[in-house]
Amino acid sequence: MTDDAERDADGRRLVELAKRRGFFLQSAGAYGGVSGFYTFGPQGAALKQAIEDTWRDRFTIQEGNMEVDAPTVMPEPVFEASGHLDGFDDMLVECPECGESHRADHVVEDNTDLEDAEALPVEEVEELIAEYELVCPNCGAGLAGQAVEDFNLMFETNIGPGSSDPGYLRPETAQGIFIEFPQLAEYARNQLPFGVTQIGRAYRNEISPRKSLLRVREFTQAELELFIDPEEDEPDLGPVEDVTAPFYPATEQEADDGDPYEATIREVVEEGVVGNPWIAYYLGLAKQWYDRIGVDMDRFRFRQHLPGELAHYSADCWDAEGEVDGDWIELGGFSYRSDYDLSKHDEHSDEDFTVFKQYDEPITTEKALVDPDMSYLGPEFGGAAQDVADALAALAERNPAAFEEAGEDGDVTVEVDGEEHDVPVSQTDFSVEEVTESGEHVTPHVVEPSLGIDRALYTVLDHTYRADEIDGEERTFLELPPEVAPTTVGVFPLMDRDGLGEKARAIARELREAGLSVTYDDAGAIGRRYRRQDEVGTPFCVTVDYTTIGEGRDDDEGEPGTVTVRERDTTAQRRIPVEDLAETLTALRDGDLSFDDL
Amino acid sequence: MTDDAERDADGRRLVELAKRRGFFLQSAGAYGGVSGFYTFGPQGAALKQAIEDTWRDRFTIQEGNMEVDAPTVMPEPVFEASGHLDGFDDMLVECPECGESHRADHVVEDNTDLEDAEALPVEEVEELIAEYELVCPNCGAGLAGQAVEDFNLMFETNIGPGSSDPGYLRPETAQGIFIEFPQLAEYARNQLPFGVTQIGRAYRNEISPRKSLLRVREFTQAELELFIDPEEDEPDLGPVEDVTAPFYPATEQEADDGDPYEATIREVVEEGVVGNPWIAYYLGLAKQWYDRIGVDMDRFRFRQHLPGELAHYSADCWDAEGEVDGDWIELGGFSYRSDYDLSKHDEHSDEDFTVFKQYDEPITTEKALVDPDMSYLGPEFGGAAQDVADALAALAERNPAAFEEAGEDGDVTVEVDGEEHDVPVSQTDFSVEEVTESGEHVTPHVVEPSLGIDRALYTVLDHTYRADEIDGEERTFLELPPEVAPTTVGVFPLMDRDGLGEKARAIARELREAGLSVTYDDAGAIGRRYRRQDEVGTPFCVTVDYTTIGEGRDDDEGEPGTVTVRERDTTAQRRIPVEDLAETLTALRDGDLSFDDL
Repeated sequence: MTDDAERDADGRRLVELAKRRGFFLQSAGAYGGVSGFYTFGPQGAALKQAIEDTWRDRFTIQEGNMEVDAPTVMPEPVFEASGHLDGFDDMLVECPECGESHRADHVVEDNTDLEDAEALPVEEVEELIAEYELVCPNCGAGLAGQAVEDFNLMFETNIGPGSSDPGYLRPETAQGIFIEFPQLAEYARNQLPFGVTQIGRAYRNEISPRKSLLRVREFTQAELELFIDPEEDEPDLGPVEDVTAPFYPATEQEADDGDPYEATIREVVEEGVVGNPWIAYYLGLAKQWYDRIGVDMDRFRFRQHLPGELAHYSADCWDAEGEVDGDWIELGGFSYRSDYDLSKHDEHSDEDFTVFKQYDEPITTEKALVDPDMSYLGPEFGGAAQDVADALAALAERNPAAFEEAGEDGDVTVEVDGEEHDVPVSQTDFSVEEVTESGEHVTPHVVEPSLGIDRALYTVLDHTYRADEIDGEERTFLELPPEVAPTTVGVFPLMDRDGLGEKARAIARELREAGLSVTYDDAGAIGRRYRRQDEVGTPFCVTVDYTTIGEGRDDDEGEPGTVTVRERDTTAQRRIPVEDLAETLTALRDGDLSFDDL
Repeated sequence: MTDDAERDADGRRLVELAKRRGFFLQSAGAYGGVSGFYTFGPQGAALKQAIEDTWRDRFTIQEGNMEVDAPTVMPEPVFEASGHLDGFDDMLVECPECGESHRADHVVEDNTDLEDAEALPVEEVEELIAEYELVCPNCGAGLAGQAVEDFNLMFETNIGPGSSDPGYLRPETAQGIFIEFPQLAEYARNQLPFGVTQIGRAYRNEISPRKSLLRVREFTQAELELFIDPEEDEPDLGPVEDVTAPFYPATEQEADDGDPYEATIREVVEEGVVGNPWIAYYLGLAKQWYDRIGVDMDRFRFRQHLPGELAHYSADCWDAEGEVDGDWIELGGFSYRSDYDLSKHDEHSDEDFTVFKQYDEPITTEKALVDPDMSYLGPEFGGAAQDVADALAALAERNPAAFEEAGEDGDVTVEVDGEEHDVPVSQTDFSVEEVTESGEHVTPHVVEPSLGIDRALYTVLDHTYRADEIDGEERTFLELPPEVAPTTVGVFPLMDRDGLGEKARAIARELREAGLSVTYDDAGAIGRRYRRQDEVGTPFCVTVDYTTIGEGRDDDEGEPGTVTVRERDTTAQRRIPVEDLAETLTALRDGDLSFDDL
């Protein structure tokens, strides 16, 4: 097999396995399926929930941040302000024969040596399609001469009857936080820095979704927006300074022999590799989190965006990347959004998106003021009177000397719409006063770690897939960390008779009541039942046998009242008293106890 | 105040309190707000998450059901099949003057003595509007003569470029389960009964949203679809048989002096008040769950739908209702959906929505079969030939005697589109054969508890609101069950100096690491900080003072190394050693320890 064919086979294997074992499947299969939408089955939904819970624990609870939960449908003015209405486009080309829509930049990239066609203007992409005589990937018809158009990736709908209130499915959860900033700042008692998190659905109406969960139309994001005072706030790197990870800065990517290299968070900050220490702090947290949920750290790196890659709002950005099926895919982005978002909403809305920053002590400055006599300006300048007044105020602030030099009987000159107007200083009530201010309004800057939950889940499945041989038989299993495994423990009676089934069901019930995720299974040979749990990554299985109910034969191992606990990765077994089971399994799941110590 | 005015005041108070304290607020306030969309603030998001977690624990984990997580955007054929495209409408009337849209049935109900206008045909509502000379609630213009139209409540959008693939935001999470039934049944190894749950967003494009969280356009549902064999499966009522609740059956509602009455689950099943024992089982679970999350059981009841109220898919339905602001509102529905959904999807899609039910032993029956000669039927009946063949097969199954009585040389008569056709028996290859079948295909029936998370949250806030007087000062607090309180423990240093702040922050960190939800607060007087936590329902507060750090005065209470733990409802205080804190607070939260026993 070629490399590409091997990768595709790996990808298909994962997708088939995901469907068969209940992790995820393309939605609405009974109706022919619908591209870019996936349903998480019983295993996948539990794994996704566990991944979200660990994210919440790490990025919200342990950090003392606030979590919110905003609607997925938002009104148009929000996206006018955020820039999504104008700038959130992909390039679309439609086949003149079969009518199928394609991403024009992908058609170019997939069939030429050109990279990054996304960054080109549509006209150039049209020309490239003609020049290379590119054809429809679906039916082979020539695409030369077809218009390439910008297609907005937001799903549009109407709020209420009629079409007067367009709404959009949010393209990122972040906007649901930004637009409520005035209220959120109050909850934080206007003290910077403060962080607000959200886990929820976001949507992109992809032209041609592909690669299973990796490019979908509906997905789950976990985002943290940290609001900081850019002049004052600095993170305490202490908790993550020794965390190491492979870093792949822009300079290395652009160098001929550049490579990612291993470094600590402290090092990349001190060496200026990661320019913003807050970004570095979150890279440290994220590395720990990805490791915790089961991403293979040998197939993981942080890559800096190249200057051409940066989003419209972003001043610097690093991606967490995982290697999946031979490709490096984006798992999360860490972006310095500066004051872009809050400034835009401040400008477009009626509310104030700043915080008032108290000075240590009040500051007194001299301030030049005017209070022009409108009963003079009105008749003199007509409709331009207010503009003249504003121009006088601006002049006083910019250049008070102009008033002082003109003297009380002189004129000052202001320009309105390209026309110069002379105004007597005596009509402006010019004065210089001492003004004492206790603080100033500051627009906070935003640092954003934005992590994709679906991609994390896909990567974890890919990275924890194992095959080995047990007693001469091939076995596949998922080496999921016990904390995130969909099921923590499978409970089996040796067989469902002589009271073994009742005992096993009672144990399953007790373990559930103790907060463990339990699967009960009495179907088929014990070996088969172990395999089924191995395949979905269940770390522990408990078997109830005759010894458990005090009816074992003399030569059986184990004391009456004990069960067998079997560990997934090693298939090692230990006998444990039933009364210790809940506590032991909880400690094993939480990492407070190792199986070897049993 | 009148009753109505008092209720409105109560409702407004809750809405204001919810915004000020960070429970929920109307979204996009900076852009004038958007009706029917709410953002959960830090307290609300945490409370909502906790409510969802307890639901998941009770209805998924403890029951051994499977949870799934399906997309919110679904393709049109799903809703053609489910009936939502045609039947999911409200009546719309638009004001000719101000252009505002209103629910026509509400305009009628709010301004006449008529009830249940929703159930009337649009023409009748038009007539009522004319007859009563009803006016626009917004501007007062007359509405007589305006068309009343059915308005579909689904949000519509387009999947991918162009408009050839309409999609809809799901009006209920249930359809995301039903359409994947063929795969879900495989996960359940085709064994009935099995249950599938989902917690997620659902959408209704309300014409005029109102009453805050109670009638919104985007909300969260927690649904369980239990698939049963209607002929065989019976619930084990044991775990809930002694649960009592007020029941309000249709008969009592229709009687002049009817009232809800208290009964156990066992009683309502035995007396036939709740016809379906599965519904009764879930009413029992739900009662326990609503109680657990803080709904006041004195303001709670189960009400049966009146025959006219039943949804298109429902054979019997009970609502859980809570009394809020003087009204009884629906908190959840418990519906027997029969085989409606699976049959519809079976009919509309290419897949099989049945399970194969094995007989205990194979059953052999005589079966009459035909295999008509199409080379005869074709020329004879033209375009109707296939219909004639189908009619012959149906006749053989229904009445094989018709063939036997006609004899080999006779004719049988079938009707197609109202026309009778004679067909010679000799052309039908009629035969009676012994057929042995090992089982049959069964379309499972569906029992559905469907609970609204937002309404539960609103009701819990309303029902746990308390006001009392502490040391002569009025105090308000939320008596939230510790398990669902957004914050479990507030940690305060007496003041942030002499190392008290450091100690308190270290304690907060430790408690967070132990999995507790913690708020740290060092701003203002201790009394004020208690009040702030009371207002958001934090059950316990920990204060770090000089005694904690071993520098207390001789006459202070408590040993060095202890902190004060204060309980919200009683404001009682106890001193606890710092090293026992995490364990003690965890036990208090989980209900394993009572504050009185400290």
